[in-house]
Order: sequence, then C-alpha cells, then structure tokens
Amino acid sequence: MSSGSVVIVGLGPGSPQQLTPQAQEALARATDLVGYAPYVRRVEAGPEVVRHISDNREEIARARHALELALNGRHVAVVSGGDAGVFGMASAVFEAVENGPQIWRALDIQVIPGVSAVLAASARLGAPLGGDFCVISLSDNLKPWPVVLERLRLAAQAGFVIALYNPRSHARPWQLGAAFEHLRQTMRGDEPVAFARAIGRPDEAVRLSTIAQASAEWADMSTLVLIGCPATRVLTRPTGEEPWLYTSRKVEGTH
Amino acid sequence: MSSGSVVIVGLGPGSPQQLTPQAQEALARATDLVGYAPYVRRVEAGPEVVRHISDNREEIARARHALELALNGRHVAVVSGGDAGVFGMASAVFEAVENGPQIWRALDIQVIPGVSAVLAASARLGAPLGGDFCVISLSDNLKPWPVVLERLRLAAQAGFVIALYNPRSHARPWQLGAAFEHLRQTMRGDEPVAFARAIGRPDEAVRLSTIAQASAEWADMSTLVLIGCPATRVLTRPTGEEPWLYTSRKVEGTH
Repeated sequence: MSSGSVVIVGLGPGSPQQLTPQAQEALARATDLVGYAPYVRRVEAGPEVVRHISDNREEIARARHALELALNGRHVAVVSGGDAGVFGMASAVFEAVENGPQIWRALDIQVIPGVSAVLAASARLGAPLGGDFCVISLSDNLKPWPVVLERLRLAAQAGFVIALYNPRSHARPWQLGAAFEHLRQTMRGDEPVAFARAIGRPDEAVRLSTIAQASAEWADMSTLVLIGCPATRVLTRPTGEEPWLYTSRKVEGTH
Repeated sequence: MSSGSVVIVGLGPGSPQQLTPQAQEALARATDLVGYAPYVRRVEAGPEVVRHISDNREEIARARHALELALNGRHVAVVSGGDAGVFGMASAVFEAVENGPQIWRALDIQVIPGVSAVLAASARLGAPLGGDFCVISLSDNLKPWPVVLERLRLAAQAGFVIALYNPRSHARPWQLGAAFEHLRQTMRGDEPVAFARAIGRPDEAVRLSTIAQASAEWADMSTLVLIGCPATRVLTRPTGEEPWLYTSRKVEGTH
C-alpha cells in the first residue's frame, strides 16, 4: 500500500564536517524534512523538498505528522541535533507509533546515529568520559523534579561522570542551581565541572570550574554541563593554553 | 621545538559510511597510525604512512609511543573503535601525559569524536536511550568488581537505561552472568534487554530478551548489552519484522 518511509537523523553538533556520509545520504533521499526550525534550516536541500517546521515543544504532534506523511508515500526525514536517540526525536516518533493506528507499525522507520552533544563536548575538553558515565536531562517537563534530584544523588554516589542536557532555559531558570546544590551534599567539592557551550559551532565556548564553585549563570540552552567524578582531573599546560579535562580509567577500591 | 601532533580518532562502528568527514581528514593528515591491530588495519592509507600495531592490553605503552613520535615531529593518529572518548584511547593518552615528562603537555593533542557503539546500537534497535541512561564498562581490569556491582545496583535504582561495554571475553567469562544476577535482585524482571552484536558491520546481529531471561552466553567481545528501565518498551510489528525497542521520555512519579 504505502511505500513511504521515515528516517530519523541526528545532524551532529552543527558543522557538516561532523555529519556522517550515512546521514548525508539519508537526508538527500528525503522528499520532506520535519523538525524544529533551527534543525530543518540547517539541512541543505533543493526547492522540491518540502520543509515542515514546528515549535520546539511539539515533539509528538511533529512525529505524528511525519508518520502520516510516510503513510501517504512520502520519504520523510525527521531531524534533530546531535544524535537523534539522545533526547532527540527518535523516542518521540516511537512513542507516537505506540499510541497511533496499528498501520504505523508496518512503516519503514530507520534511525541514523550521529555525534551527540556529549561526545562532541567530551572530545573538545579532552577525555572526561574516560570512566563510567551517565547522561541526564535536567528538564522536568516529562519527569517529576524529585526524580531528577534522586538520579543525580545516585549517580554521584555511583561515581559516574554526569553529563547534563537541557540544563537551563527561560522557562526553567532555577533547576541547574538546585542540581548543583543537591550534588554538593554528596560530593567532595573539588570535582571538576565543565560548561561546554555550542561545541562545534562558531560561537563555541568552554568554562571550567568545580562543583563547589560552579554557577548556574554560566549555562544557557546551548550548554552541556559535565560534572566530573573523583577520578576526573584537570591537566594544566605549560604554554598557558586551556587545560585538558580527563577521567582516569582506574578506580580505587572506594570512591 | 616540536611541530608534531597527536590526534585521537574514533573510527565509528565499522562502516566508512559512519565516519565523519572531520575524522577522515584527520586520518588523511597522519604520518603515523597507532593502535590495536584491527583498528589500524581498518584505516585506508598510502604506503608512506607508518603503521604501529600493538596488542589490546597495552594502552598506556601505546599512548606513550604516540606521544614520543609527536615529540619527534610526527603527525600521529591514535585510532580506536566507536568514539575514542568512550572506553577508547583518549583517556589513556591523557593518563600518559599526566604521568609523563612536562614537555608532553605542550604537545598539540586533539580528540575527534565519533559515533560510539552505544549510539549505533541504539539507532539500530529503535530509541532505547530515550530517557536518562548510563554507560558502564563491565571490565574489572581497572576497577574492582564490587565497584561494578554497586554501580549497577545504583543505576537500576535510579531508573537509568544501562549500556554495558566489554560484557564478556575469554579472560572475563563470568562477569556478565553475575551482573544479570545482581540486577535481578533490584529490577522487576520484565525490563527488556538487547544484545547488539557488531552493529554497523557485515556480521551484525540483534537478540531481544528480558532481564529475567537474559543469558550471558548470548554476548561476546563484540556485543553491546542494553538493559532497559521500567519505561522501556518492545513495539511488536504486524509484519513479523523485528520489534522496535524504545524508552518513553515520560517518567512517572516513582520508579
């Protein structure tokens, strides 16, 4: 009946240099692009490709729209930043499938992996993910705030390096400060914290601090916050260049 | 004095289609390739490029060798699979720098991010990383086994999806079974578990199960094991095709 398809593509950190050939080819086959405006605009495509632009908070409506287009024979690329599976559009599409008509489950749906923001930030800083780590969205739009706090506490107790997505926005101004305060109760204080902003884009910026000193004011919507563990170290450089941040692979008996 | 450099490059899951142009260019500039044999062999390079091949367990010696070559003016690419920052060579290089002569800190060292095994496996399966998640190496070569078990327990308690690297090898045959057994004490039992083997390579294979039923026998050195959380679901398909695995972005008040 239908020969349409949905491909969910993570566009990487920003530069086309960090987009895989697989993702490029998937985008080149699309008849329709669906996504939040800044991502849809980032894709180069001819005038015959239809661009469906939606607001940031409308993930499920956007996913349903993509699935309906595919059912009508269109080849739809749903785009988000970084890796589509890490707080991108992949989960929203399958959530729409689960709650939608049975026929959507027969559609050709593929996910194309990309370089996630946490991997781009890690590479830019050195090797802060050298040990076990976790990735947490600080948004409490889809989970209760006490769950976020409890996850942070357990992650610190486990000795994970913690990567925080969505640390701060106009609508959620206080959560990051509360998260730092909560972590200070569990952590030593000297664990390094990195604010990695817009990595891979022209306005990228890095700021290093510690969990004791870190200020939520240093983050915005484009910032990934990386919180080190006891094995994370700052390597100063004789040349006065920005230090490297890395996490030793070795863990002592206790932490 | 020296104008050499070290670039640490993650080669992605395997296919050149999943290697970014940035990584390709970094490899093309190298005069020397350093790494574990299967990764060095994967790189296409002319006969003028020197290949330094080492055993799997010699990460620090390999890192020191790369740094010495760079000090002698060579442009060295240290290669590993997936993303170099996720249980790859990046941390080992900075560990060697920390413990080496001060002059190594003046070297030009860059890390190029790649598509990690966990992101490739996630995309292949659907969207199992849709919520908060953690990434744990099951190897107890560099950390005590009780630390691994405690991290697993805390991760399950936090409701993280858990990605396990290095689940099983000839030298570590029993750890994965012990990890499953340990997790069964904390988890409900019906949480999905995926065995994603050699994703992105010609011999890729996927097996789905639950934490109650999962057998360590289904994993080998090339397998990434993904353990779902209570919000992870298996979406069956009317066409008899392989189900999709995804984690809902929504978290209820308790877990």
